[in-house]
Amino acid sequence: MKKLFGIGIGPGDPELITLKAYNLIKSCDYVFLPESKGDSLAGRIAGEYLKDKTVIELSFPMGEDNQERYRKAAETINDTLIDGQTSVFLTLGDPMTYSTYAYLMKELEKFKVSTETVPGITSYNAAAALLGEPITLRDESFYLADGGNLDEEVLKKVTSACILKVSKNKQEIIEKLEANGFRYVYVKRCTQESQSVIYNKAEMLADKDYMSLIFARRA
Amino acid sequence: MKKLFGIGIGPGDPELITLKAYNLIKSCDYVFLPESKGDSLAGRIAGEYLKDKTVIELSFPMGEDNQERYRKAAETINDTLIDGQTSVFLTLGDPMTYSTYAYLMKELEKFKVSTETVPGITSYNAAAALLGEPITLRDESFYLADGGNLDEEVLKKVTSACILKVSKNKQEIIEKLEANGFRYVYVKRCTQESQSVIYNKAEMLADKDYMSLIFARRA
Repeated sequence: MKKLFGIGIGPGDPELITLKAYNLIKSCDYVFLPESKGDSLAGRIAGEYLKDKTVIELSFPMGEDNQERYRKAAETINDTLIDGQTSVFLTLGDPMTYSTYAYLMKELEKFKVSTETVPGITSYNAAAALLGEPITLRDESFYLADGGNLDEEVLKKVTSACILKVSKNKQEIIEKLEANGFRYVYVKRCTQESQSVIYNKAEMLADKDYMSLIFARRA
Repeated sequence: MKKLFGIGIGPGDPELITLKAYNLIKSCDYVFLPESKGDSLAGRIAGEYLKDKTVIELSFPMGEDNQERYRKAAETINDTLIDGQTSVFLTLGDPMTYSTYAYLMKELEKFKVSTETVPGITSYNAAAALLGEPITLRDESFYLADGGNLDEEVLKKVTSACILKVSKNKQEIIEKLEANGFRYVYVKRCTQESQSVIYNKAEMLADKDYMSLIFARRA
């Protein structure tokens, strides 16, 4: 049997990886990395854990929604491994939350590569910790959305929300939050070296980073 | 200055702690543990990391919503630490998600104990990984609630949901999920030794464990 562990490496701080993910990196035969335009953020974040490892980059161009890429990546993984070997695929944040891995996992089902997923710290869990703002207290509820699909009817019913990938619809997102009585904070590249926390609305609107989120709670 | 790190130790598997939390346990002066009825689940899960540490249990009786307990716990932490010392408070899962720590953190603001929060793997992130079910794919959204407050209007609008602490309202929760076109799975004590995954509705309804969740996705 061939095996791939889809492991979350957390949002950016190399220490926010789990012991389980760390140990799997150390013990595996191959490390697969998602790469886009010659760069792998996951590879940079986990860089210090990858010394002496055989690393293979899989190309996932940013923004391209290409089923064929996932199929090719699954084929590369299948062709690389021999029976009995294990490998890991590194995912920023959590593999089950807005991640390329979920698509890759589906494609691997068509080959004889078994998969196992190791959860990772999400950017919104890290942002809540950084801000000292609860995601949920007792009897509260939480809504996770991405920038394109923030539903105002849902906002009316929950206590807190986090919207990821806000760069394209920021103005509209902020208007919906304000209209529904939320306080909100903008967090860019949470726990990464270039992390920034912005409370000022004009500054939020001016920022262009695609790796940003808005965390909101009722006042 | 006195310092307390609120650290998430993950849902149960001792390896699902972050390197950051592990290193803070190793380097701190005191480990504070939540205890209820003579038992500390967090203490048992992190047990192997607590050897040679000075451990102090803080009593938080299960089910009691007692502001006075949080105040007393904060007082104990303040009285224990001397200036320059650091301590950790262990939380099951994530400190900002349905956790006692969020209340304790508020109380500590009244003393000269600074706090810093280290995120942890939540039970629902671990459940999604275990089940191989995405929390969110591209353009999807997710709803987190506890058993008492599941809103059907929200369910109609999201792609996936997780309901924690389902033991008291299980029948009602399942009916709402079915009425709104969700598949659902019951996960008990995710990644703990007594973990169990239940797909059969009658078995779900018969189970009494309070540490259980239902993970749901649209078919």
